[in-house]
Amino acid sequence: MLSENVYIIGAGEAKYGELWDRSLRDIAVEAGLKAVENAGIRTRDLGAIYMGNSLGGGISMQEHLSALMSDHAGIASEYIPSMRIEASTASGGAAIREGFLAIKSGEYDIVMVGGAEKMTELYGSENIDITSSILDREWEAFEGATPAALAALSSRKYMKDFNVPKEILSKISVNDHMNANLNENAHFRNKITVEQAMKATLIAEPLNLMDCAPLSDGASSIVLASEEYVKKNSIEGVRIVSSAMSQGPFALHSRESVYTVEPTKLAARKALKDANMKNSDISFVEIHDSYNIYGLMALEDLGFAEKGKGKELVEEGIGLNDRLPVNPSGGLKAKGFPFGATGVGQAVEAYLQLKGKANKRQIKDAKRAMIHNMAGSGVASVVHILEVE
Amino acid sequence: MLSENVYIIGAGEAKYGELWDRSLRDIAVEAGLKAVENAGIRTRDLGAIYMGNSLGGGISMQEHLSALMSDHAGIASEYIPSMRIEASTASGGAAIREGFLAIKSGEYDIVMVGGAEKMTELYGSENIDITSSILDREWEAFEGATPAALAALSSRKYMKDFNVPKEILSKISVNDHMNANLNENAHFRNKITVEQAMKATLIAEPLNLMDCAPLSDGASSIVLASEEYVKKNSIEGVRIVSSAMSQGPFALHSRESVYTVEPTKLAARKALKDANMKNSDISFVEIHDSYNIYGLMALEDLGFAEKGKGKELVEEGIGLNDRLPVNPSGGLKAKGFPFGATGVGQAVEAYLQLKGKANKRQIKDAKRAMIHNMAGSGVASVVHILEVE
Repeated sequence: MLSENVYIIGAGEAKYGELWDRSLRDIAVEAGLKAVENAGIRTRDLGAIYMGNSLGGGISMQEHLSALMSDHAGIASEYIPSMRIEASTASGGAAIREGFLAIKSGEYDIVMVGGAEKMTELYGSENIDITSSILDREWEAFEGATPAALAALSSRKYMKDFNVPKEILSKISVNDHMNANLNENAHFRNKITVEQAMKATLIAEPLNLMDCAPLSDGASSIVLASEEYVKKNSIEGVRIVSSAMSQGPFALHSRESVYTVEPTKLAARKALKDANMKNSDISFVEIHDSYNIYGLMALEDLGFAEKGKGKELVEEGIGLNDRLPVNPSGGLKAKGFPFGATGVGQAVEAYLQLKGKANKRQIKDAKRAMIHNMAGSGVASVVHILEVE
Repeated sequence: MLSENVYIIGAGEAKYGELWDRSLRDIAVEAGLKAVENAGIRTRDLGAIYMGNSLGGGISMQEHLSALMSDHAGIASEYIPSMRIEASTASGGAAIREGFLAIKSGEYDIVMVGGAEKMTELYGSENIDITSSILDREWEAFEGATPAALAALSSRKYMKDFNVPKEILSKISVNDHMNANLNENAHFRNKITVEQAMKATLIAEPLNLMDCAPLSDGASSIVLASEEYVKKNSIEGVRIVSSAMSQGPFALHSRESVYTVEPTKLAARKALKDANMKNSDISFVEIHDSYNIYGLMALEDLGFAEKGKGKELVEEGIGLNDRLPVNPSGGLKAKGFPFGATGVGQAVEAYLQLKGKANKRQIKDAKRAMIHNMAGSGVASVVHILEVE
């Protein structure tokens, strides 16, 4: 039966970090089973499993992670179909979208959406080489471009064109660390000052270590259910009000601007329109700040500030008690950045916040969240709007 | 708007083979644009692109193939969302399923489903190591198991338990080559005799070179459309009557039987039930014979013969003019086996046959097709039933 609405009814997570003693399958299973338990369902209630994962083939030489996870969760005998969804660092957001559409189609009542990435394991090749798999291998990576180099390029141009000092970028990282300090699943829980952020080891000028999200291991999982299921079982879920995805030119050199991500703009516009909302209706936002410049660009492209004016928003304050809290989870910089898990992790945070279960980092009266997951340097973006009724 | 029915309205393919002068993106783009042209639509009509690909991360160190393909097809400026679907060698079938569900959900009117794999390119590691990424890396591959070794194990046990001579397996390969001889997109167009098939170079006893599908480069693509679109434009498409997927234990050693693939049985049963059909209603079948033993097992698990009795079907004849033509395309053995493209290639063949456009290999009065795409040694299976009205 077609489901008009789709709800998140449970969430689970394995701690993000450098988990040298844990394998990809371990953390995927942990997050998945925690989500099932949290949702109060049985594993055999699952109609399907969608697993976001970006680099399993390159890093761990392990494909078909969705099936491996099911098996090692001990549920293979339930013959639940699964597949891996890959859209670079937006794999998690794309997996949520597939779960959302599958329930809407009426095919399933309950679906698990997981995301997992083991970044600290190197089986096949060099780390920088593998992470460059998300770039255009032949037209970017072979020429020496790396993800950090491309972000640095966008930073320089942005800072010059809009006369934005480096402090503004640093403040986004400082905010992430501030919030991650309150998130027990975060990779980096230490608070940092703007001064510390400004003085860190250089990575790709003008970006230093505190401007770049870490390579984290981590897994996140949510359980989605149809309207019929939620009503029948009197569950107060978090509704996925809208889902939108857009994708543009792959390589940075093909785009009209190096600091405007058209797919983010288009996805946000569609998500807001489908939800019949304005930016001012959003209580908080989780943005894809794999580099803090991308965070600043996202705030603008998502519609929270005009292009070049994101600094005003940052200066006004983006903390838990400010008008627009940004990345209450700790964001990619401090909660961590396990590529394919990231988008699902954002949904976990939004679920906790909207259910009032975010403990010390709870945002007051949080009713509506926007979550933004981006592929690479902006090839694609997935935006979801969530609401608690 | 919810679409009750989903149709294939176009198909395109890049030749399968060892394409040393072509890249992954080249062949993906060729198949995609041919399908768009064949469907008589414009690229900007596409709502989304789903791309089946299994090993791009390991072989070409290139992730996010769906977006790369869009870009190099020259359609990035249309901002069409896309994602890669990965379910090992069943990636293509899984991608069809996602396109099918996305249209059913009402989100899109038209969707492209592509599959592409470049098997002859080795960037990161050894070929046998990379193809073993579809196994359980830690519990199978590290112990020395390879896909061929596992298929050999199943062959031995099957041949012993059911007293099946090796000739039966060889005849499946002979049939594939016979049909591929008539398919200009096939990797191997040479006919072979049973004697030749029996005497080929040993790979993993009892399997020799003629029992194993080749590692092919190749790309296939189809265009799916909603019922509303098809009716409005008076298109006579091929209807996807049913779609089913099932998944069981990952590693071969975890299964109850080494020659029964439970996910194939369950998916076929559901696909037939949803279609309200019996096996005898099926005009022809495309089966996943990555090793001919898997083809024989599939004929049984799909319900065309009882377990252990597949040999009777093979002896009766599985050619284009027999009661149940098997693999009119040439199958995985002779049309070729580009991992993630395979399932979409099966749909291309079914589309051509059902539209009466299969030229010299046309099956008379073909009305209904079953296509079967399997992951690895039987981790998962996807079954679709297609019909022309």
